[in-house]
Amino acid sequence: MSNDHQDDNPPSLKPILDQNACDFSASGNLHIDGLVQERLQTLGPTSVLFYRKPLEFDHGQGVWLFDTDGNRYLDAYNNVAVLGHAHPAVSDAVAAQLQKINSHSRYLNKAGHTYAQQLLATLSAGEDCGFLPDPRLVMTCTGSEANDLALRLAFLATGAQGVIVSEAAYHGNTWLVNQISPSSCRQLPDWVATFSLDALQQEDIPVHQAMAAIREEITRAINTLKSRGYGVAALIADSIFSSDGVFAHPTGFLTAAVDEVREAGGVFIADEVQPGFARTGEAFWGYLRHSQAQQPLQPDIISFGKPMGNGYPVAGLIAPDNLLQAMADKEGYFNTFAGSHAAVAAAQAVLTTIGMEGLQENARHTGAAFKQELITLADSCPLIRSVRGAGLFIGVDLVNAHGEPDAELTSQIINALREQGILIGAAGKHGSTLKIRPPLCFSQDNVALFISRFRHVLTTIHS
Amino acid sequence: MSNDHQDDNPPSLKPILDQNACDFSASGNLHIDGLVQERLQTLGPTSVLFYRKPLEFDHGQGVWLFDTDGNRYLDAYNNVAVLGHAHPAVSDAVAAQLQKINSHSRYLNKAGHTYAQQLLATLSAGEDCGFLPDPRLVMTCTGSEANDLALRLAFLATGAQGVIVSEAAYHGNTWLVNQISPSSCRQLPDWVATFSLDALQQEDIPVHQAMAAIREEITRAINTLKSRGYGVAALIADSIFSSDGVFAHPTGFLTAAVDEVREAGGVFIADEVQPGFARTGEAFWGYLRHSQAQQPLQPDIISFGKPMGNGYPVAGLIAPDNLLQAMADKEGYFNTFAGSHAAVAAAQAVLTTIGMEGLQENARHTGAAFKQELITLADSCPLIRSVRGAGLFIGVDLVNAHGEPDAELTSQIINALREQGILIGAAGKHGSTLKIRPPLCFSQDNVALFISRFRHVLTTIHS
Repeated sequence: MSNDHQDDNPPSLKPILDQNACDFSASGNLHIDGLVQERLQTLGPTSVLFYRKPLEFDHGQGVWLFDTDGNRYLDAYNNVAVLGHAHPAVSDAVAAQLQKINSHSRYLNKAGHTYAQQLLATLSAGEDCGFLPDPRLVMTCTGSEANDLALRLAFLATGAQGVIVSEAAYHGNTWLVNQISPSSCRQLPDWVATFSLDALQQEDIPVHQAMAAIREEITRAINTLKSRGYGVAALIADSIFSSDGVFAHPTGFLTAAVDEVREAGGVFIADEVQPGFARTGEAFWGYLRHSQAQQPLQPDIISFGKPMGNGYPVAGLIAPDNLLQAMADKEGYFNTFAGSHAAVAAAQAVLTTIGMEGLQENARHTGAAFKQELITLADSCPLIRSVRGAGLFIGVDLVNAHGEPDAELTSQIINALREQGILIGAAGKHGSTLKIRPPLCFSQDNVALFISRFRHVLTTIHS
Repeated sequence: MSNDHQDDNPPSLKPILDQNACDFSASGNLHIDGLVQERLQTLGPTSVLFYRKPLEFDHGQGVWLFDTDGNRYLDAYNNVAVLGHAHPAVSDAVAAQLQKINSHSRYLNKAGHTYAQQLLATLSAGEDCGFLPDPRLVMTCTGSEANDLALRLAFLATGAQGVIVSEAAYHGNTWLVNQISPSSCRQLPDWVATFSLDALQQEDIPVHQAMAAIREEITRAINTLKSRGYGVAALIADSIFSSDGVFAHPTGFLTAAVDEVREAGGVFIADEVQPGFARTGEAFWGYLRHSQAQQPLQPDIISFGKPMGNGYPVAGLIAPDNLLQAMADKEGYFNTFAGSHAAVAAAQAVLTTIGMEGLQENARHTGAAFKQELITLADSCPLIRSVRGAGLFIGVDLVNAHGEPDAELTSQIINALREQGILIGAAGKHGSTLKIRPPLCFSQDNVALFISRFRHVLTTIHS
């Protein structure tokens, strides 16, 4: 619990997660202003809203959300609704299950085995990328719980305490994983060391150069942790680096870094909460994108959550049987709602529908076209510095007239897009990267609409 | 993170949560044995099953669960299904909501305010028991997340690190709250001190004597934490002491202890995951039972979970606005699935149905009759040492022929009851207390059936 050397650590980033937040000033809409006040009186000050003029949605369908006045918004932000909003495959499956039984996982439920078998089969996904030894699925309710447990397993596996994360990472909201989340935790404990992705700002950097740059960062972090007496328990990384501002290329840039971590005695946890479940188009899991060519990227533990149940709270991790056995020998782990009948039904509906509707292929195709349109737009717009991403996970770096990252300008653009009926958010250590990650049923027409509105906003914004 | 004085702490209890576990030996049923093997290959060794012959349920209704062979079981164990299994109020509400929208809480959702207002109104529940100052509802997905956050708030509020828990407590499964759960965590860290409830084994102890005994225990724990240099951040207690073996009387026994904790600078967290939502019959919250007479018991933070959504993953905490503001000033807190539209719909359906179906009143009436029947049974059965509880939360201490607590005997009885179609579990630091906490629609006929089967098992068991 004690962090004796805390003052040695530099203050971490200003928390950026809430950068897209409502400022609680009057929105100009009496109904909305009333709701905001009511919310403060009931859900309190930690309950931050999006947008200067917060939104109240009545219903959704596919990539669309409809507010209570009937206005529709193109959702280019919400990755939880991976199949699209209110997808009947999930609502039907959950409804049918709740009418039958929804109990905990201390009773047998064959559907859970079937789901686990199908999910574990995605680890190789048609390519010979290697397996975890005897991988098993442990279900939780949230990605935070999954990362919390993944870190406990890493501590147990290594006997070490130090953790390496990217410099604007977000890994969840429990007491433990909040502390490995520089984008949320203001003062990192000294058992956490960070690495920068600055070298990857332009995606055309040669892979050997990218690998060397990241390896150098990781080596520095390892040395920091060792000098503080913690050793290295884990490198935990979201392989799309969502919160850092989306760093997807060149593929393979993490492999040498992971080798360094293993050399130092640590494990590699792939946090797939953001890139998992087909979003990056090129693979079902984000880490698998980096497994091509001669150097496979093999995690020791894989965690996931957000899109897993299209909004039903279900998450989990995959870990080797022997590590789970070591934990079971030491202490119990039970999660009341995790792996319940309804959670399995929701997760199965999502997994099946991703396949049936070809959503990974759509993420690849439509994502590539989307990215190309954004790159073309950047050619005529100096406010866009760079475009990065894979599949339907794209980051757009914005700069002001002086060529500098500008969180306030980014916020203006996000709020202007909201006025234009487009939902989007920000990320990155400067809070100046647009984070685009729509439902995977996003179409070429949706791309055209987004580009048209985005061009309009960029040409009219006061920078 | 470091626990320098760890060796000073005595080893905590042998984990007892899994005492009611399947031993993975052959059940004598080929279908079940196959499923157990399949489960080990997919969900792994942390995935512990109940009963020597594990059960596979197909559906449920009210207090009944039906296995895949059509046999029915009376559920006297599962408190999550507070309204009864597959209650249409919840399945209908969730189904309707999933068909419309199920998004996160960064958008306005008036239904969430309405629910919060109704839940916050239960804090006084018709009695003048005092309020937290400006209480607010923070929704999470699980009770573990709620307790994890509650403890973070306690650390923030007090600047101290020490935590006091009962000696067989269970407060959840995150890295942090696992360490304040002696029933799960084998080696408690030295920032945790425990207190015993042994003085309350017989419910007829006079209240002043009970208060003095618990206060003495708490004073000892406070001194332990101070001597280790941690100070006192919190006393966290489940006011029905489920995991300790159910200690419900005499009401008021905690008040002096809480005074001592406040005197030492700590806060009182009421963990209502088990007793909350009308189960104890006498009040909506377990802590309110102890608030009668001259000494109100007023928590600083209230956490809850299990029954809140009748199985839909929803949980939360209630804390004062100023404490939440202090947290918001320091760092963000966001929980992707918490307070989603469907979570609110499920929680609202549960809260409304508890009122409409008079479940608190049923818990009081039927629970009192159930307890009386058990006390009567105890008169003729030496294996029952004592019966404790409130409403539909009852603990039955079992002893062997030598008058000693006997976990193996208790396990035999639990498994024999399962053979008789009755579902039940164990608790207590010796693993020798039957834990009875059925759905709150449990009827007098259900009580009669339970007593009849229990009598049969007690008279035929090999002790």
